[in-house]
Amino acid sequence: MVSPAVPAAEYLDPRTGERFPLLPPRWRSDAGAPLLVAPGRTVVSDFGASAAPEAPKSLTTAAVAERGVWRYRSAMGVGEGVAPVTLGEGGTPLVAGDWAGEGTRFKLEWFSPTGSFKDRGASVMLTALRDQGVTAVLEDSSGNGGAAVAAYAAAAGMAATIFAPASTSPAKLRQARAFGAQVELVEGPREASQEAAIAAEAAGRGFYASHNWQPFFLEGTKSLAYELWEDLGFRAPDAVVIPVGAGSLLLGCALGFRELLAAGAIPRLPRLYAAQPRNCSPLDAAVRGPEADPLERPVAPTIAEGTAIRSPIRLPELVEAIRESGGSTAAIPEDGIAAAHAELARHGLFAEPTSATALAGHAELVARGEIRPGETTVVVLTGSGLKAA
Amino acid sequence: MVSPAVPAAEYLDPRTGERFPLLPPRWRSDAGAPLLVAPGRTVVSDFGASAAPEAPKSLTTAAVAERGVWRYRSAMGVGEGVAPVTLGEGGTPLVAGDWAGEGTRFKLEWFSPTGSFKDRGASVMLTALRDQGVTAVLEDSSGNGGAAVAAYAAAAGMAATIFAPASTSPAKLRQARAFGAQVELVEGPREASQEAAIAAEAAGRGFYASHNWQPFFLEGTKSLAYELWEDLGFRAPDAVVIPVGAGSLLLGCALGFRELLAAGAIPRLPRLYAAQPRNCSPLDAAVRGPEADPLERPVAPTIAEGTAIRSPIRLPELVEAIRESGGSTAAIPEDGIAAAHAELARHGLFAEPTSATALAGHAELVARGEIRPGETTVVVLTGSGLKAA
Repeated sequence: MVSPAVPAAEYLDPRTGERFPLLPPRWRSDAGAPLLVAPGRTVVSDFGASAAPEAPKSLTTAAVAERGVWRYRSAMGVGEGVAPVTLGEGGTPLVAGDWAGEGTRFKLEWFSPTGSFKDRGASVMLTALRDQGVTAVLEDSSGNGGAAVAAYAAAAGMAATIFAPASTSPAKLRQARAFGAQVELVEGPREASQEAAIAAEAAGRGFYASHNWQPFFLEGTKSLAYELWEDLGFRAPDAVVIPVGAGSLLLGCALGFRELLAAGAIPRLPRLYAAQPRNCSPLDAAVRGPEADPLERPVAPTIAEGTAIRSPIRLPELVEAIRESGGSTAAIPEDGIAAAHAELARHGLFAEPTSATALAGHAELVARGEIRPGETTVVVLTGSGLKAA
Repeated sequence: MVSPAVPAAEYLDPRTGERFPLLPPRWRSDAGAPLLVAPGRTVVSDFGASAAPEAPKSLTTAAVAERGVWRYRSAMGVGEGVAPVTLGEGGTPLVAGDWAGEGTRFKLEWFSPTGSFKDRGASVMLTALRDQGVTAVLEDSSGNGGAAVAAYAAAAGMAATIFAPASTSPAKLRQARAFGAQVELVEGPREASQEAAIAAEAAGRGFYASHNWQPFFLEGTKSLAYELWEDLGFRAPDAVVIPVGAGSLLLGCALGFRELLAAGAIPRLPRLYAAQPRNCSPLDAAVRGPEADPLERPVAPTIAEGTAIRSPIRLPELVEAIRESGGSTAAIPEDGIAAAHAELARHGLFAEPTSATALAGHAELVARGEIRPGETTVVVLTGSGLKAA
């Protein structure tokens, strides 16, 4: 494979423009802000597509023989010679779903090593951290994120400790434990687990490899944008509906589609729509709500467990990504999530309830006239129904 | 896509050579023997490969734009114009597993709609049956087969009834019920569920769409052979190790590789190895055992639930497929299966215990000198660890 020279990557604070070198490894700025990996750059020729969508789509380079997330490695801030920590993540199917409205397609993210899209991010994050000399990782999660980080740490030969709320059901931690991760239960709300992980880092127990904080995680979820573009014959969809908790998949999509736009590979951004449970919908409050402070919106338990994040770390960036794309949000009541979950299953799709929020959101956005019949719309089903109780 | 004329398919009894038309739909011969779909034919040019393995591997036809099982539809006995019942099955990753021996690769079959390889067979079987006018299907299963048939029946808009042993854990039936299938619990051993399904067919309640009997199921599992061939750059592996209960995946592989050999696309068959739990290993008894009658070998419960089949319907064909390929069998004690299951997880692979039998079998075959270090060997991990209790 003949590759163009790769510019040295660094960390970028998108709020201030401040930059930090990749080494020593870090997960936030000196001021405590979340970071991105910069520069976002795209070498579309590596994927066999020219900048002009009508150009021949022959698949010709060695890079494209790769399947899944690492097919798009030229768009990631991971050095060329670095061996990926991979378990077959990405390369998920995009299936027709016209029963949900003409032009609807479902991206089935549970076709993955641990059963959710988080494997995309974990693969790239653990690859980068291993390359940076990290040998032990700390993560806080009550579900899919912890399973993914534990699996890739196992594959990478790294130690992993997962901090989880004491209220987490043992079944949800079974996967992380099977991968050999140490699971530590933390009393108190979800935030207490994050504090415990950060305290463990301060105590020298490892690097805080948070799927919400660590920027390389987004370099992995970014692959979803490239993959959708390739799935559709090197064209972007009109709209993408994504369940959003902390928002790593929506932000990854935003990063990827921005890069494709900057490279001239697509003429415009697809509209990005966030679907949240009404019971925990700070992003919907920020984009559409009457609340002066989106975090004022009351929070209640939800069956969409994967999106029960009260205070997303990257909330301003999520708002910006949605507005820039011309998208919006939808906040779904619990009965709407349950009905959408059952409807998916009746069509053969066994997703977790969190994923069903996206189908319900899609229906609401169609009803609001924001998504029009016949538009190419991707509803992302983020995780497996086998994990739900 | 320019396709060669497709010969009309029919059913073949491989034991007698007797043939039956596709219509009316059937699942066994008049004499009660299991059937295949004939003719097995291969149009390798459709996959972008010439018969000579050294030829250019450009992907040029419309057919190859398809992902997964239906990419190989020119090798199936399904009419050209028939719309597939598809949920994104197949196209699973083949990942490096040198930690288990140089040249070892794992095929991860839980990257699938319902979490097991059975989706390959169900997709093609339900497609054929819908095309043949079937509107209600009957199946007996206590696990992956029932989930797969229920999912594809839902996707096809067909009614499904799954007959399961009364001892089946509710968790294993949750998936089939979510898809809208009617689940009927049957007292007695596993065989009683099959009898109940056949009796229900006789009572006019639907067509017996058994994943063990119905020949089109094998047309779907056959795709694994084509996929491995393409995964490896249009070359067959040296050896494939497969967990075997009723044997639909091993038989599918045998059919596919035979077709590729007949088409001149590969120079020889890969050696096929069956891994079984020692506690239920009639195929191992038939191939290697001292027993005069393989069904005399005592049977005991096993954690490899997916392979707990006392009396495989297609036992003679399984023996023939293994002998013809130069392969063999391995029978693994329960502690060996459990150890292999844990070893997979320690490397980030969360498979069901049934799948782990293949890893343990691989180790035994290496120890016996039947698989040599450096050989390209595929260990098939057939189902998701998320389903195991």
